[in-house]
Amino acid sequence: MPSGGAPPASGAVSPAAAFGDRLSSAVADRGSQVVLGIDPDPARLWPEAVESLSESRAGLVLALADVERSAALGPGQGGRDARLDAAAAVLGHCRALIDAAAPACVAVKPQLACFERLGFPGWLALEATVAHARDQGLLVIADGKRGDIATSAAAYGQALFGGLATPFGAVAGMAADAATVNPLLGEDALAPLIDAARGTGGTVFVLVRTSNPGAADLFDLELADGGPLWERIARMVAAAGVQGPESGLADVGAVTGATVPAHLARLRELMPRTPFLLPGIGAQGGDVGALAPAFAPGRAGGLVSASRAIADAHAKGGGEPAAAARAEAERLRERAWALA
Amino acid sequence: MPSGGAPPASGAVSPAAAFGDRLSSAVADRGSQVVLGIDPDPARLWPEAVESLSESRAGLVLALADVERSAALGPGQGGRDARLDAAAAVLGHCRALIDAAAPACVAVKPQLACFERLGFPGWLALEATVAHARDQGLLVIADGKRGDIATSAAAYGQALFGGLATPFGAVAGMAADAATVNPLLGEDALAPLIDAARGTGGTVFVLVRTSNPGAADLFDLELADGGPLWERIARMVAAAGVQGPESGLADVGAVTGATVPAHLARLRELMPRTPFLLPGIGAQGGDVGALAPAFAPGRAGGLVSASRAIADAHAKGGGEPAAAARAEAERLRERAWALA
Repeated sequence: MPSGGAPPASGAVSPAAAFGDRLSSAVADRGSQVVLGIDPDPARLWPEAVESLSESRAGLVLALADVERSAALGPGQGGRDARLDAAAAVLGHCRALIDAAAPACVAVKPQLACFERLGFPGWLALEATVAHARDQGLLVIADGKRGDIATSAAAYGQALFGGLATPFGAVAGMAADAATVNPLLGEDALAPLIDAARGTGGTVFVLVRTSNPGAADLFDLELADGGPLWERIARMVAAAGVQGPESGLADVGAVTGATVPAHLARLRELMPRTPFLLPGIGAQGGDVGALAPAFAPGRAGGLVSASRAIADAHAKGGGEPAAAARAEAERLRERAWALA
Repeated sequence: MPSGGAPPASGAVSPAAAFGDRLSSAVADRGSQVVLGIDPDPARLWPEAVESLSESRAGLVLALADVERSAALGPGQGGRDARLDAAAAVLGHCRALIDAAAPACVAVKPQLACFERLGFPGWLALEATVAHARDQGLLVIADGKRGDIATSAAAYGQALFGGLATPFGAVAGMAADAATVNPLLGEDALAPLIDAARGTGGTVFVLVRTSNPGAADLFDLELADGGPLWERIARMVAAAGVQGPESGLADVGAVTGATVPAHLARLRELMPRTPFLLPGIGAQGGDVGALAPAFAPGRAGGLVSASRAIADAHAKGGGEPAAAARAEAERLRERAWALA
């Protein structure tokens, strides 16, 4: 911090370091801007996940038993639960994937939908996956693209970040370092999510321009007073962020699809200090080399996210899944690192 | 169906009745357009929910034990879990609320964030709440405002509606009748959610214009080729829906905030056959009397949603929570029914 210089948001005393600074340190420490996207499909798990199913199931059941312990009832009458098996296998897959790719990554990005579709056992597997990623020193970006009006947005903030006090004791949240959020409902809907993230030294990545073909339907609509909708959202994101005193990186981020490199220079111009989350590498057709403008504010200005490109690397290049995933993650790491 | 008349989407054979027809029947059968919004706060539960905590907890633990049964491990070493207690109390509250208000309602609308913030025990309470509502003959509208690119949107569709096949057996989804969804990512992101809903005779309610003050930030932006953004979304919703052959009501719905009655006539003009979900009654300042345009295509054209106005009716008017909730739900039912 410059001598005598006050941090930009000197009125708010944060209980944790500003996210921009945390991110900048994490990227430097790990020598990586790669985000491991985790979107497990029970039908396409690594063989080792299926082989270690009983072990993974035992881990989930242990967590259930912890919860059950205080109750008087004995075991129920239900049969074998396909959801528990599927959730356990997914957890085994996620652990193996994290173990394989972690050395080349700075963060994981679990796609919440993939866990939610397995019901509460899936949510339990999500919690265990998040804990495992944290144990490996990785940041956690909860990819749920949440957005709702004030009261509900605050509840999502509690779920994703710091939890809540209840008459029954404190309930911990997911304690994610970041979450993806949807800005359609406006600033007063984003604010509780930003506040919840900021209060724990975390961030939100706001959808500014996604990488799917249909993103053109609304994001690219031209506004009457000039420019597309996504520029308006970009300005909203730039205004909401507070720069970290050490890194200069803001604590509100943006999701900017890696498949639209033509937009990246303009996005960086509109959001000069905003961390960009760049999904769409590999499976969606994005190329790392086109991402250079993202790194203008420094290496931590752009996080390169890949999911299937890493998890399914063996399907393309052969070899063992874990070895192929590690090699692909390392390849992405080197290419991105060389750009900044 | 008129003799010889083909249903509008004759190419797609649906395994269940079209949602528009199901909704129309449900509204007629129950004599109500009222949706009971469920957004439980562990700090503001009804006293009876706290009093019946041990019973509710036993129910949750029974569900956990069903899952645990196939495993070899004994009970774990953890202490009493505040999350389980909070989730159990929330479940007790939701059951009591549903029992009180069900006679005046056609559907419930659980706010997913309020359950997610209690972690996997909260998701378990959500599943039990949904099952209880269904047992009372109510439709279930999962209020999660989901939206994501194709693969992830499909996963949300599996989670909310019909589930998925896995190598470990079929996993059932939430089997909701409807879900709220966010259109920002465009038509190709909405399509998997619409398909998942349609495949089970359900629907999605697309956010067209929400009721919070900040909704003006993006929804109301004027487009270069005329009209606000919300009109463009309304046209997208109208085009996506398929009318039920009996009711004429479409199978893709719209969330249209009840606090902006000035927009309702125009919204109805743009979406003549679309079911409207109208949140914001009561706590958010909306008034039932202003909703008349919603009911133009028939009584099922407008679903009047109220959450705190029902659950917290006793705080305003006194009396027992359940009796006050029942009276308030019935008052809303009568007022809405008289409009159409």
